[in-house]
Amino acid sequence: SALAMATPEKTADKNPTSIGWDTHKPVSVIPDSLVREGDGPDGNYPMRAKFEAMCREAQKKITAQIAEIDGEATFQEDCWTRANGGGGMSRVLANGKVFEKAGVNLSVVYGSMPQEALQAATERGVDRAKGMAPGERVPFFACGLSSVMHPRNPHCPTMHFNYRYFETDGGVWWFGGGTDITPCYIDEEDMAHFHGTYKRVCDNHDEKFYPEFKAWADRYFVISHRNETRGLGGIFFDDLNDRDPDKIFAFSTEALNSVVDAYGPIIERHKNDEYTEQEKIWQQIRRGRYVEFNLVYDRGTIFGLKTGGRIESILMSLPQTTRFEYDHKPEEGSREWDFLQACKHAREWV
Amino acid sequence: SALAMATPEKTADKNPTSIGWDTHKPVSVIPDSLVREGDGPDGNYPMRAKFEAMCREAQKKITAQIAEIDGEATFQEDCWTRANGGGGMSRVLANGKVFEKAGVNLSVVYGSMPQEALQAATERGVDRAKGMAPGERVPFFACGLSSVMHPRNPHCPTMHFNYRYFETDGGVWWFGGGTDITPCYIDEEDMAHFHGTYKRVCDNHDEKFYPEFKAWADRYFVISHRNETRGLGGIFFDDLNDRDPDKIFAFSTEALNSVVDAYGPIIERHKNDEYTEQEKIWQQIRRGRYVEFNLVYDRGTIFGLKTGGRIESILMSLPQTTRFEYDHKPEEGSREWDFLQACKHAREWV
Repeated sequence: SALAMATPEKTADKNPTSIGWDTHKPVSVIPDSLVREGDGPDGNYPMRAKFEAMCREAQKKITAQIAEIDGEATFQEDCWTRANGGGGMSRVLANGKVFEKAGVNLSVVYGSMPQEALQAATERGVDRAKGMAPGERVPFFACGLSSVMHPRNPHCPTMHFNYRYFETDGGVWWFGGGTDITPCYIDEEDMAHFHGTYKRVCDNHDEKFYPEFKAWADRYFVISHRNETRGLGGIFFDDLNDRDPDKIFAFSTEALNSVVDAYGPIIERHKNDEYTEQEKIWQQIRRGRYVEFNLVYDRGTIFGLKTGGRIESILMSLPQTTRFEYDHKPEEGSREWDFLQACKHAREWV
Repeated sequence: SALAMATPEKTADKNPTSIGWDTHKPVSVIPDSLVREGDGPDGNYPMRAKFEAMCREAQKKITAQIAEIDGEATFQEDCWTRANGGGGMSRVLANGKVFEKAGVNLSVVYGSMPQEALQAATERGVDRAKGMAPGERVPFFACGLSSVMHPRNPHCPTMHFNYRYFETDGGVWWFGGGTDITPCYIDEEDMAHFHGTYKRVCDNHDEKFYPEFKAWADRYFVISHRNETRGLGGIFFDDLNDRDPDKIFAFSTEALNSVVDAYGPIIERHKNDEYTEQEKIWQQIRRGRYVEFNLVYDRGTIFGLKTGGRIESILMSLPQTTRFEYDHKPEEGSREWDFLQACKHAREWV
């Protein structure tokens, strides 16, 4: 903490918005649905159960496909529920042949938040909160599927995705999500495949989506203190509520179900590539940067850590092994240097 | 980011207090003093130059002693200055025989902060800010020496210290600092030596210091989301301004110059200990926890990252290699489990 002396200890950071949820309870078998009974398909909030079912289906499919690519390890399943509704299921593969660590987490949350948080989160929230008493908290529901996969081979990129649906009891709702890729070397063909897959998915729903969500990913996945992205982007969106929810649901569903199409072939292509010790060290250094992003900037991670989420599920995103070297600078013109340039100046891949 | 869906993206975290400093400029030779000319021993703020000189002396001495314990690697020196005064010097030893990474950073900062930050930071600040116009920022000076040392051998603990002096141009001042130790196994003799050394140092100045500052360290170095400390404590204090500054200066000086007395013998005793692969893995897991603390909770680190400090100096505190394992739980009754118990329930060591 080189600069601790410049920090008035008591004011340096603020507590995050309290969403006041209860702690989780491990269960051996997950209920058929984590959504409260009244929120089911025949209830007031049909999208809640619909989105959860879609996520659970995708979790099953994706983990089966990834286990097949790995060929050796299997996913360990951990389930939990919460007293006031909601819960989750983590599926984590560790010490595989291809993957050092790969996790896919389902999470369903019932909580409440201050009106100001809602107002800041979405423009429509302002209207919704107008009729409420000052200080009154807004109950909300959130469901999402998120994942990070860290392969062993330095020529196999890390991949992250997160698709989520958010809805207040007042009926304000939005979708968010994205899939992004973090190699440690540039492979033009890989990037054209990954970004190309998501461009096609986006184009099936709205031709404005890919350029907008690609640029959003380039802005979001930035390690600000280093002025570089953590990887080579993908798509990212949030607060999406500008059309029929069923249309956004269809887009989210296709994006989520395209993860393995976008990522799998890249892993198959490189999982047996030879590599040098230097390449492995570079991968480890880049994984250190991944940790810096996740623990310092990723709002979901920080929020989860400070508000009582299931720690092991939140932190499954951290790579199994990392390296933090003092003042590491790749030689100008090297492949490592090329990669860093692409992290400092976002490029188009399709 | 398992819980990203529960986070209103735009409100999850706040920007830290801006202290509005200028960026640093590398220099090959460090000036004799980084303190502004008017702040010298004959100027208005004699403690500024006095504290800096003391830190620089200690930096030289400590790095010489640590290099001798390592026996192979030497410290790399990086110096920088800032246009409006201040600057720093990092001394980092990497890839040593005994130490994987060891750094000692000198930092001198001139900045300004909002009155509210000052008022929150120290009670006397309230009075000082009373005569100021609303919104007027408070210029301040800060100087500190900080360090983290990560040995290779899992039986050699990591050690951290940070001693600092803080003063506004209005004359509000305080001292802060501490030294703490992070082994990954309990060695009662080591802990009695480390804590015993600092108890003697404290007792030389005020018999209330050790019990108070030991308890403060146990409260401060907590990985809150895991409800465990990062290590086995030491001393920590802040906002100390309740007596003649020369008396606190004398205490800070002795505490800083006792770092190697407290830590060196432990390293000498264990640097050639044999260890198993399992012990090395456990060390790596505990180093992952060290990263979690530093990037999520250490206010100096976060503040530095978000306000334009010299990144490589701030992050020299991160261990060179780490491990993040999913849901790792030591076997009940094992030495790893014993260690965790001590992290969950603070113990007395002297």
